[in-house]
Amino acid sequence: MILRYVVCAALLAGCAQSPIALRDMGSFDVGGREVTVSGKPVKEVVFTPGGVPAKVDLNGTYLVESMYVQYFLPAKPRGAVPLLMWHGGGLTGVTYETTPDGREGWLNWFVRQGWDVYNSDAVERGRAGWAMYPDIFKGEPLFLPKDEPFGRFRMKGSQFPVDSYDNFVRQIVPRWTTTDDAIIAAYTALVDKVCPCVILFHSQAGQFGFKVAQARPEKVRALIAVEPAGQGDPKQADRLKGIPTLFVYGDGIEQDARWPTIRRNGVAFGEAITKAGGKVDVVDLPKAGIRGNSHMLMMDRNNLEVAALIQRWLEQQGLYR
Amino acid sequence: MILRYVVCAALLAGCAQSPIALRDMGSFDVGGREVTVSGKPVKEVVFTPGGVPAKVDLNGTYLVESMYVQYFLPAKPRGAVPLLMWHGGGLTGVTYETTPDGREGWLNWFVRQGWDVYNSDAVERGRAGWAMYPDIFKGEPLFLPKDEPFGRFRMKGSQFPVDSYDNFVRQIVPRWTTTDDAIIAAYTALVDKVCPCVILFHSQAGQFGFKVAQARPEKVRALIAVEPAGQGDPKQADRLKGIPTLFVYGDGIEQDARWPTIRRNGVAFGEAITKAGGKVDVVDLPKAGIRGNSHMLMMDRNNLEVAALIQRWLEQQGLYR
Repeated sequence: MILRYVVCAALLAGCAQSPIALRDMGSFDVGGREVTVSGKPVKEVVFTPGGVPAKVDLNGTYLVESMYVQYFLPAKPRGAVPLLMWHGGGLTGVTYETTPDGREGWLNWFVRQGWDVYNSDAVERGRAGWAMYPDIFKGEPLFLPKDEPFGRFRMKGSQFPVDSYDNFVRQIVPRWTTTDDAIIAAYTALVDKVCPCVILFHSQAGQFGFKVAQARPEKVRALIAVEPAGQGDPKQADRLKGIPTLFVYGDGIEQDARWPTIRRNGVAFGEAITKAGGKVDVVDLPKAGIRGNSHMLMMDRNNLEVAALIQRWLEQQGLYR
Repeated sequence: MILRYVVCAALLAGCAQSPIALRDMGSFDVGGREVTVSGKPVKEVVFTPGGVPAKVDLNGTYLVESMYVQYFLPAKPRGAVPLLMWHGGGLTGVTYETTPDGREGWLNWFVRQGWDVYNSDAVERGRAGWAMYPDIFKGEPLFLPKDEPFGRFRMKGSQFPVDSYDNFVRQIVPRWTTTDDAIIAAYTALVDKVCPCVILFHSQAGQFGFKVAQARPEKVRALIAVEPAGQGDPKQADRLKGIPTLFVYGDGIEQDARWPTIRRNGVAFGEAITKAGGKVDVVDLPKAGIRGNSHMLMMDRNNLEVAALIQRWLEQQGLYR
């Protein structure tokens, strides 16, 4: 194992210099539903200063709650199935791209290993767009002051590149707490379109990854729950018994006010899967000798070390050729 | 010219099969400003159902009005400078990705030709995110019923893949008409970061492309205005005299209620640049034998024919090696 890791680290350094060869890359939108809105005015809109006014009737049918997916397909695929990356709350697929301090993120790294990667923006955020509220989305969006996530994401004294914290804040988008059903519906449509697959999900997407896998267990070959903040339905844990599942937790959890409970809930859900006959691995990174990780593991200075751990686990599941 | 075009068409077909080799790809956020918000409540937020409540103080400093940029750098660059792609109103960088009916878009095509491409989401939309209103953004966002752009974008009877119209609607995001200054500030920060460059811009971005080039003429090697719906400052047309500029217009303009005026305004601005000593080419595609283009040229069935026309013009400017 040690030799293997050294080889991998050497490869990492080499890979960063070598070209990324793709047989294709592109994007699509998936899911959504039509909603009819009435009682709105007809507006005269000047879209551009000095432009030609246009009459816009705000009444009619809206197409809402679809999601955006971008894919990168390596020229020499080695993953047995595609790898889907689902981001956390208030964030988008940018989570997995270049880190806030300009290093390579998990998206590039897993593409370089030969995985077909589908990186997406969930309903409500980023390129998925959002719907008018309170007409269609219920409730109001939540905006976060720039310092707010710093504590909640356990960044102080961590491996997170704190000097580039502002670049992380620039990635944050407004969020609702009332759109979960729409998000799950669109993720399910995505799974129906591109799977069988592995789903790697982070934080808020804990509930989405597990719930969508419970809805489509035959489509999912493995689940990687990266610091999940939510779970699936514990009463349906048996629906996950055929899907190898990895939980990954970072450092500093015990010193935090909320994270011991969040972790306990996640591990309890994993135990329910195990009890139902499933195969669950829980990795607390500090216990595996990987120290200092914040909640944003995929951006931390040692992000590729964590990626390599996930890669090895996927290999052990026979999902890499 | 005819022979050349035949070779190009043959290359196109071939290219779609060959791998895309990138020396790098990634993303960053750029620009933005800090705003202090006060008088808001401290909320208790349950981010995830069954999750652990967190106290969120909505007062404090917000980092707003940055923009998102994704880049693709070919292994064998042939463009003399990077090519920036700026989308139109209510849209994001997805404009230049895979077409709504699943064909290759301008992003892939220009990357395959060897251009370093920077494709972005302007302030307010997509992965750039948006700020609370009316506190920070003034006015309200505008949402479009699904049928609304169909007429305004001259799609009826056009080369637009109308059977996939819903996939185009899924790309649309809410828009403001009050955020132009913030958008221009962030685009200017982008130009300061990655240029000298060529800027290709569409529709609403007409004003952004021209105004940012007027602010940073020394940074811009060429401008490609694809059906611009706005212009720069005509009094400062001389600031663009050193920048070769191409206007491209599609078909069906004369039959439309608004587009003859929009085109006339654009061409008049081009004439002001010419009068100041600049070099401006205006291509009306039907007059060049390319028929049926809607406002969304980069998605039309003949999108790569239009891309090839732009590529030839760039070659003629000595910007391709």
